[in-house]
Amino acid sequence: MIKAGIIGATGYAGAEIVRLLMGHPEAEIKWYGSRSYIDQRYADIYRNMFQIVEDVCKDDNLDKLAEEVDVIFTATPQGFCASVINEEILSKVKVIDLSADFRIKDVKTYEKWYGIEHKSPEYIKEAVYGLCEINREDIKKARLVANPGCYTTCSILSLYPLVKEGLIDPATIIIDAKSGTSGAGRGAKLDNLFCEVNENMKAYGVATHRHTPEIEEQLGYAAGEEIVLNFTPHLVPMNRGILVTAYVSLKEKVSYETVKAVYDKYYEKEKFVRVLDKDVCPQTKWVEGSNYVDVNFKIDERTGRVIVMGALDNLVKGAAGQAVQNMNLVFGLEESTGLDLVPMFP
Amino acid sequence: MIKAGIIGATGYAGAEIVRLLMGHPEAEIKWYGSRSYIDQRYADIYRNMFQIVEDVCKDDNLDKLAEEVDVIFTATPQGFCASVINEEILSKVKVIDLSADFRIKDVKTYEKWYGIEHKSPEYIKEAVYGLCEINREDIKKARLVANPGCYTTCSILSLYPLVKEGLIDPATIIIDAKSGTSGAGRGAKLDNLFCEVNENMKAYGVATHRHTPEIEEQLGYAAGEEIVLNFTPHLVPMNRGILVTAYVSLKEKVSYETVKAVYDKYYEKEKFVRVLDKDVCPQTKWVEGSNYVDVNFKIDERTGRVIVMGALDNLVKGAAGQAVQNMNLVFGLEESTGLDLVPMFP
Amino acid sequence: MIKAGIIGATGYAGAEIVRLLMGHPEAEIKWYGSRSYIDQRYADIYRNMFQIVEDVCKDDNLDKLAEEVDVIFTATPQGFCASVINEEILSKVKVIDLSADFRIKDVKTYEKWYGIEHKSPEYIKEAVYGLCEINREDIKKARLVANPGCYTTCSILSLYPLVKEGLIDPATIIIDAKSGTSGAGRGAKLDNLFCEVNENMKAYGVATHRHTPEIEEQLGYAAGEEIVLNFTPHLVPMNRGILVTAYVSLKEKVSYETVKAVYDKYYEKEKFVRVLDKDVCPQTKWVEGSNYVDVNFKIDERTGRVIVMGALDNLVKGAAGQAVQNMNLVFGLEESTGLDLVPMFP
Amino acid sequence: MIKAGIIGATGYAGAEIVRLLMGHPEAEIKWYGSRSYIDQRYADIYRNMFQIVEDVCKDDNLDKLAEEVDVIFTATPQGFCASVINEEILSKVKVIDLSADFRIKDVKTYEKWYGIEHKSPEYIKEAVYGLCEINREDIKKARLVANPGCYTTCSILSLYPLVKEGLIDPATIIIDAKSGTSGAGRGAKLDNLFCEVNENMKAYGVATHRHTPEIEEQLGYAAGEEIVLNFTPHLVPMNRGILVTAYVSLKEKVSYETVKAVYDKYYEKEKFVRVLDKDVCPQTKWVEGSNYVDVNFKIDERTGRVIVMGALDNLVKGAAGQAVQNMNLVFGLEESTGLDLVPMFP
Repeated sequence: MIKAGIIGATGYAGAEIVRLLMGHPEAEIKWYGSRSYIDQRYADIYRNMFQIVEDVCKDDNLDKLAEEVDVIFTATPQGFCASVINEEILSKVKVIDLSADFRIKDVKTYEKWYGIEHKSPEYIKEAVYGLCEINREDIKKARLVANPGCYTTCSILSLYPLVKEGLIDPATIIIDAKSGTSGAGRGAKLDNLFCEVNENMKAYGVATHRHTPEIEEQLGYAAGEEIVLNFTPHLVPMNRGILVTAYVSLKEKVSYETVKAVYDKYYEKEKFVRVLDKDVCPQTKWVEGSNYVDVNFKIDERTGRVIVMGALDNLVKGAAGQAVQNMNLVFGLEESTGLDLVPMFP
Repeated sequence: MIKAGIIGATGYAGAEIVRLLMGHPEAEIKWYGSRSYIDQRYADIYRNMFQIVEDVCKDDNLDKLAEEVDVIFTATPQGFCASVINEEILSKVKVIDLSADFRIKDVKTYEKWYGIEHKSPEYIKEAVYGLCEINREDIKKARLVANPGCYTTCSILSLYPLVKEGLIDPATIIIDAKSGTSGAGRGAKLDNLFCEVNENMKAYGVATHRHTPEIEEQLGYAAGEEIVLNFTPHLVPMNRGILVTAYVSLKEKVSYETVKAVYDKYYEKEKFVRVLDKDVCPQTKWVEGSNYVDVNFKIDERTGRVIVMGALDNLVKGAAGQAVQNMNLVFGLEESTGLDLVPMFP
Repeated sequence: MIKAGIIGATGYAGAEIVRLLMGHPEAEIKWYGSRSYIDQRYADIYRNMFQIVEDVCKDDNLDKLAEEVDVIFTATPQGFCASVINEEILSKVKVIDLSADFRIKDVKTYEKWYGIEHKSPEYIKEAVYGLCEINREDIKKARLVANPGCYTTCSILSLYPLVKEGLIDPATIIIDAKSGTSGAGRGAKLDNLFCEVNENMKAYGVATHRHTPEIEEQLGYAAGEEIVLNFTPHLVPMNRGILVTAYVSLKEKVSYETVKAVYDKYYEKEKFVRVLDKDVCPQTKWVEGSNYVDVNFKIDERTGRVIVMGALDNLVKGAAGQAVQNMNLVFGLEESTGLDLVPMFP
Repeated sequence: MIKAGIIGATGYAGAEIVRLLMGHPEAEIKWYGSRSYIDQRYADIYRNMFQIVEDVCKDDNLDKLAEEVDVIFTATPQGFCASVINEEILSKVKVIDLSADFRIKDVKTYEKWYGIEHKSPEYIKEAVYGLCEINREDIKKARLVANPGCYTTCSILSLYPLVKEGLIDPATIIIDAKSGTSGAGRGAKLDNLFCEVNENMKAYGVATHRHTPEIEEQLGYAAGEEIVLNFTPHLVPMNRGILVTAYVSLKEKVSYETVKAVYDKYYEKEKFVRVLDKDVCPQTKWVEGSNYVDVNFKIDERTGRVIVMGALDNLVKGAAGQAVQNMNLVFGLEESTGLDLVPMFP
């Protein structure tokens, strides 16, 4: 059994790791780390866990935790993991960081977009970007995995085959993304109150959202050139789910079959990426609670653009599910262990 | 492996049986029966099942189906099961009927409340009321299980200890129940449109809802006397979840501890019934996607009443989950097999 | 033109007074009082008011405000109005208090349920309970109006005719109420986050909610005797709307026509109380945005109880609308001035 | 008083015309036309109108109706208005058609996108496209007004100043639009059931939605050249509201102030178009129930694009409100008569 510790176990992403590991046959949670709820019973904070989790919350001391577990998940605000990580920890345990601290290779880009100083730039190079479908082999050997962002996972997996195969002009990429509200976290903020979100919709972080450089960097690797793109997130009145609608210009006219073949090339053997049938648009509800990403595309011959769509559950494939998938890879388990989650509908 | 057939597999309750059996280690689905979607791919009707279920829908012929499976779930409108059931079927397979056809022992009561003639009254006596926590031993020996209604499961389990132990006056029972909209089924009706339900709430079936006699009968057995009660369902703008708030008068003053002990007596060893801590009110979200019923009570010394609360997921413990629990009992499996579902929050 | 000042103009109830007075032909707002947003532009806090309200927020100094306006609305937390009210203020302006400070005539009851000391018990007697349909004549002469609570308005108006006419046994009154989330206010609390409320339902304040003694007192006046009852509020995932379902035992058997006549006696001429047609259950959406209360009842001959239902918009008839209705009465205007709001559906 | 008749009064858009005209001081409804509910009381179909509207529904005979009213609103499916309109009707009454029948000047384009034959092409030229802020003077003289679509109103008003002033390259226009569910109408369709829409999001009509040629034509007039663009609508789990996020490439670098000045040039005097403050993103809730369109833009210097955002209530400015605004223009009334609707929040 893999012994797991979770720092930030009382946030929504951390709580989702708990949910998933409860059903994982090869892992058990040894440490529910929290800053706000130390010594409180975990099931008093997430009452869905009543009679399922009996533990109380502990602190967020990574050094101590590294003595007791095999893997640490840090589901913490930006800057935390970078500020505490060290060689001793990494020599003892695997670390899967759900924050952005080690996602971006260029520390200047990180510091510009996040507005904070990076406290452990020496580990950036070593850290592996944990997008399992793309970086599988590197992840297997990693000590430190940078778990991708929710928007980024959906955006990159939706666009990857087109970019990688050079079918589209990377300068034309526009990503319009919509997210449920759990992505905003469990902080008690006015903007996230029920009455402010319900029956409402808005864009936010326009031209400034921090997932932009992450998407640009990863798609840039696929393209073999630097990419600058537009990414606009929106808040939608639902708990879970991200929907990405991306617009890209084709370099030259191609048929549906050609593009479909390109998607199949990359995803046919991927359990968690489902390329939908022709003309079926992804819906967030079809993946809710599961680790799937549903993707599809539509060629608009009038404009020469492809409209690419992707849907995932931001707390699963967009966070905790991918983190567990990374854990499975790192520990040599079958990649989908504990992740055979059938989407819940309705 | 238990071979299962589902009639009505394209309704919400039927689809939930599919979801649950996908994760059941001892059962496999051999027949997706449907009236409306014969020969269509199941995953085209429930696209969450894309690449998970490859089968196409078949018809609803129970005689034929009885040749091919070990257990038949009928998730069908009232009257269907009673109109097709026969000795040959029951001699070959176990039948778990999710409709009301065999729930009510008095055929006149059934016919009065449901307004249809019962086509197989000869099987009413044999049928076992499938409320697992109450009728466990009988269910194990049953050929025909009448799976309880969603409201009734929640109402009965919430009140059972108080009624059984004679702490309350059965003539005072008032049940105010609230349900998410999936309980109304997948029929394309004006009343169930998003814009009619969203941001709205109403009572319906006031003093006439068909779950009333079912609750009365079952609680009557517990009380050892006939019970007449008020049951009022309400429609709430959410997909899943039933919340019951029941009001009953105590026969005499009792302490919290006494009542708590009574609940513990019946439920301490029940995996799927969670008696919450003092003063914690059940919430539907804490059981969503799982087979749990959360119950609690509050004594109001001013009025001499107990307010009893219960919450469950109407599609799981209120329908498909309980049906699978019944299947497990009937086939001698560990009762919770395939039902280790951790509630999803948020 | 009546000059109005609002203290607590940045809460949801205060903001609704703003919305209503914007459409009131005889009143204008001179003071947007706030504790948290002093000197900020009101339309920056409620951006629906952009280019409609140009004012900035001022403080909550009632003495100063009394110099500048004709009427003061206090949409403030419990205790505020009682702590600042004085004879000089009341000699200059009318005060309509939306808090509970002056609703309950027995100061001990107030202090017990609210857990705070009443700072101005000397005005309790003078204050008029502002339930317009019941206390119209007294309100017209009032200096200080205690605007009723949202749950109480709905509960009392639903039950009043039955209690007043002595058709029911007051000892049997049970009120099960359900409310949208705006009733919880605009405070940034974890419990009111979108993801905690959405797809969820719960009872709260069971046997302890502060609207209980208010309902008991007012219905007690109607009954001519002291009443002790059960009141249970529930939180529902919608912005606006309260639905009350009340259960009462009839003293003796009566016909639908008799009860209907009793309701008509009290409400036929009331513009804002709509007694629905037989068997039509009130829905919160049918009154949303308006000052209506929809009520109806169903006699259950099996149990001898009447199930009474009422629906209103908690921010309008349950708060701001009734406050404006009170203002109209106090200033001798036609009672419905500025309140001709057609419910918005869907 | 203007006498108005509504054909399709029992759809959501028709019902919203009813709501608005109830508060209009210069108009009264004489005819509630419906195909499905003839001879039924209107308030039985929309119970929010109980005791407000006493009329029963009549048929949809325009010839007859033209004898009795001054203006006819046709809130009907595509093809209806074109199939019944004639010279005699137009000689007697003004017609405001909320369908697409007369919106598109090129009949071939109409027939291609709508897949039906146009039955009255002879009136296409005469019909005035009823986007009040753009075509005000022509509308005043019109007999037949083609009321714009909901998506189109939001899209065009958001982009108009940029296109008209030639700041952007029209070939780069991409419009990503999101709509609440009332836009799908009141038909009892599976796709619009609460459980299918709630907690869900999807794109639909990708590259084929019928509002595309309407937007292209109107923006083409502004640009003085033919425009081909991408328009992608999405369904969001809320009742009302459209949010448009559009992406366009600047011809050359411009400052915020320059673009702001361009928006102010066109909208400063427009009551119903609110250009928000810098960096404030439109939210659908801020315009709910009102006739406002909120617009704003953000220049992304990294990509050279402008992201333009617009929000409106699809049933008001996107349908009924604009129809009433058109009526006001046609009849020489102050344009905002009856439309002083303050947005409802929350």
